Amino acid sequence: MNIVLLSGGSGKRLWPLSNDIRSKQFIKIFKCKDGSYESMVQRVYRQIRTVDPDATVTIATSKAQVSAIHNQLGEDVGISLEPCRRDTFPAIALATSYLTDVMGVSPEESVVVCPVDPFVENDYFYALKELSEQADKGEANLVLMGIEPTYPSEKYGYIIPESKDKTCFVSTFKEKPTKEMAENYIKQGALWNGGVFAYQLQYVLDKAHELIEFTDYQDLFAKYDSLKKISFDYAVVENEEKIQVMRFAGQWKDLGTWNTLTEAMEENVVGNGILNEVCSGVHIINELDVPVLAMGLHDVVISASPEGILVSDKEQSSYIKPFVDAIDQQIMFAEKSWGSFRVIDVENASMTIKVTLNEGHSMNYHSHKHRDEVWIVISGHGRTIVDGMEQTVKTGDVIQMKAGCKHTVFADSELKLIEVQLGDDISVEDKVKYKL
Amino acid sequence: MNIVLLSGGSGKRLWPLSNDIRSKQFIKIFKCKDGSYESMVQRVYRQIRTVDPDATVTIATSKAQVSAIHNQLGEDVGISLEPCRRDTFPAIALATSYLTDVMGVSPEESVVVCPVDPFVENDYFYALKELSEQADKGEANLVLMGIEPTYPSEKYGYIIPESKDKTCFVSTFKEKPTKEMAENYIKQGALWNGGVFAYQLQYVLDKAHELIEFTDYQDLFAKYDSLKKISFDYAVVENEEKIQVMRFAGQWKDLGTWNTLTEAMEENVVGNGILNEVCSGVHIINELDVPVLAMGLHDVVISASPEGILVSDKEQSSYIKPFVDAIDQQIMFAEKSWGSFRVIDVENASMTIKVTLNEGHSMNYHSHKHRDEVWIVISGHGRTIVDGMEQTVKTGDVIQMKAGCKHTVFADSELKLIEVQLGDDISVEDKVKYKL
Repeated sequence: MNIVLLSGGSGKRLWPLSNDIRSKQFIKIFKCKDGSYESMVQRVYRQIRTVDPDATVTIATSKAQVSAIHNQLGEDVGISLEPCRRDTFPAIALATSYLTDVMGVSPEESVVVCPVDPFVENDYFYALKELSEQADKGEANLVLMGIEPTYPSEKYGYIIPESKDKTCFVSTFKEKPTKEMAENYIKQGALWNGGVFAYQLQYVLDKAHELIEFTDYQDLFAKYDSLKKISFDYAVVENEEKIQVMRFAGQWKDLGTWNTLTEAMEENVVGNGILNEVCSGVHIINELDVPVLAMGLHDVVISASPEGILVSDKEQSSYIKPFVDAIDQQIMFAEKSWGSFRVIDVENASMTIKVTLNEGHSMNYHSHKHRDEVWIVISGHGRTIVDGMEQTVKTGDVIQMKAGCKHTVFADSELKLIEVQLGDDISVEDKVKYKL
Repeated sequence: MNIVLLSGGSGKRLWPLSNDIRSKQFIKIFKCKDGSYESMVQRVYRQIRTVDPDATVTIATSKAQVSAIHNQLGEDVGISLEPCRRDTFPAIALATSYLTDVMGVSPEESVVVCPVDPFVENDYFYALKELSEQADKGEANLVLMGIEPTYPSEKYGYIIPESKDKTCFVSTFKEKPTKEMAENYIKQGALWNGGVFAYQLQYVLDKAHELIEFTDYQDLFAKYDSLKKISFDYAVVENEEKIQVMRFAGQWKDLGTWNTLTEAMEENVVGNGILNEVCSGVHIINELDVPVLAMGLHDVVISASPEGILVSDKEQSSYIKPFVDAIDQQIMFAEKSWGSFRVIDVENASMTIKVTLNEGHSMNYHSHKHRDEVWIVISGHGRTIVDGMEQTVKTGDVIQMKAGCKHTVFADSELKLIEVQLGDDISVEDKVKYKL
């Protein structure tokens, strides 16, 4: 099976765990058998590998997520890099062209496109295989997954099928309805549109060439930022006559709010947390090292990260966005392809950061105009290059770098260091990168 | 007026703001007119100075609190240092002897003894003056403050006066009663015993010499740890015939739990916190730099500090102690006479701390057996002494100290530094102090 996972943008609805640079699909919140935790994207990737070890998985995403994806899934996963965000039609066209032109997949093969963050079981991925096989048959140009509704949701679009058969042609589509309308649709046999569909690559290549003037993947990539923002639904689905829908009745959850996310958690506490016996329906997700103690609460979610602390009634948590938008908080934690960093102290003219480099990785060779830096290696060993001079470093070593000085560090084992930045004008923008 | 403030021990009922080394009276939680915040001890001290600028104030406390007292009240406040905790009779005997033998107060003068942490207005301190003046008259050996009860509390002892006069002799004392008994006492005109009383110094000196063999303050101080633990009530009050009580009808609150403490707060948010419009009766006390967002909560207290995060129904917060006792968390923040420190990162074989030295102060000259240390000055200037060598230091300077090396730093301005400790066996016990 060829599968394209659409990895959407940043979201603030799961603040303080998601923010401008950390999307919800990367939060490690689901307990694995070995006691560790995995993220939505890790869970989905693992499930695909279980159902189809030979699947060609391509993640369509922006530059901002590449580090986190490699960090969580390894270097082998295929990435269709969107130079900028241009909605789903350009993204799917680019990924389709990536599969044929870069990955060498035959245009006659089918591909399944689905979001990276549904909370599902393995049966969902078997259904994706069926979807792909149905697309192979060529009875329709697009085969959608229709999810059996479990309640009259106002959050989803609806697909009205022509019959109650497992697979049949689509009669019509309905936009997000009111509750009453949704109840009506469901009586007519309507299904949720979860944005999951399969097609033969050539079909979308043709559509892309109809709407965009380009020669091949490289060309499409190069002119990506000039493309019009347009959704796949609007550009393709609404104009297509030959669309089938295949029913799916298994578990399918969209974990977009704290309320729905905590429903999917196996345990009430992730991280260092204590609930007293009076608490009911309380979830603690604590990424900090210090404990969270909850007493006498009901249906509340508590989440603490280096970015901040949320304490919310679960229902109320869906109204979080404007409050988080109003918070002017610098990024305190980030995963990078080479490891991670965490801000541990902020003063007027200094900032202290803990940097963790994964074994075999290094940061960019770079300099700063307006700040001096000091590194203290607190664990591991590696090599620094400072203004062209390489030297080995180990735990306890101190490296001082004046403003303007070019520097990097290679981790020969996992390497942790405390970086103290000193200057009146400390900013993430103050960075010049160099080739080594 | 001579006044002895009893500054009690550590408490965990206001965790995470109070802990083993930080007592509730030092939490800065009350808003001042200039927008800054003051602690209970600062508030009481300021109120005494307002009512009686010439008052001789002595704080009876243990060594653990001396740093915090000097840090919050300055160097001029009198401290009767208890070498160890021996309950209220030895503490009051020591403070009394300190006043006569060290401070040179005449034994004929009176003194008022009261806890350091009542939440009261200025009228309370005028009442203390009256209490002292009543003791001066010598009609009784002890003059107690009797607080007009506002509800039939089960938390306090009760004083049954002989009459309803403002000042009269005590008929009897009653232990903490049930609610029904308390209602009965109040009908009989009973008053709360808030542990506030006045006496002529000679009276308690005589009592002390009756019960303890000692010559003077120095001698009493030297043998303090051999003294029996006994309360002032048990040793003195219960055996005394000539006790008067003076009524006090003003505000008097004992802020021992989050529930009572938040009632006394003028604002719902101290520190970086946001309440959505649905919240009611919610208090946020946040000592961290990152925001706390509360949504849809009712009658909840949220408190965050470097030690941890509490989210509790206000009623439930009085049951906090056993949960906090079970938390095995190292001290993450402490106020010292020279400034403060905060743990900002903990790893297996390293710990990173931010140290703030107040201008004109220094830490002890000391060494560690099992760890190396690195200092990076992040603001201010001063002088370090490392193995006897003095050198000036300023922002950006790095000082490396190997295990065994003696070191200290003097702050010539407020001085902040990041201290990285490196070693397999990092412990607060690993410290040898030296004279300079």
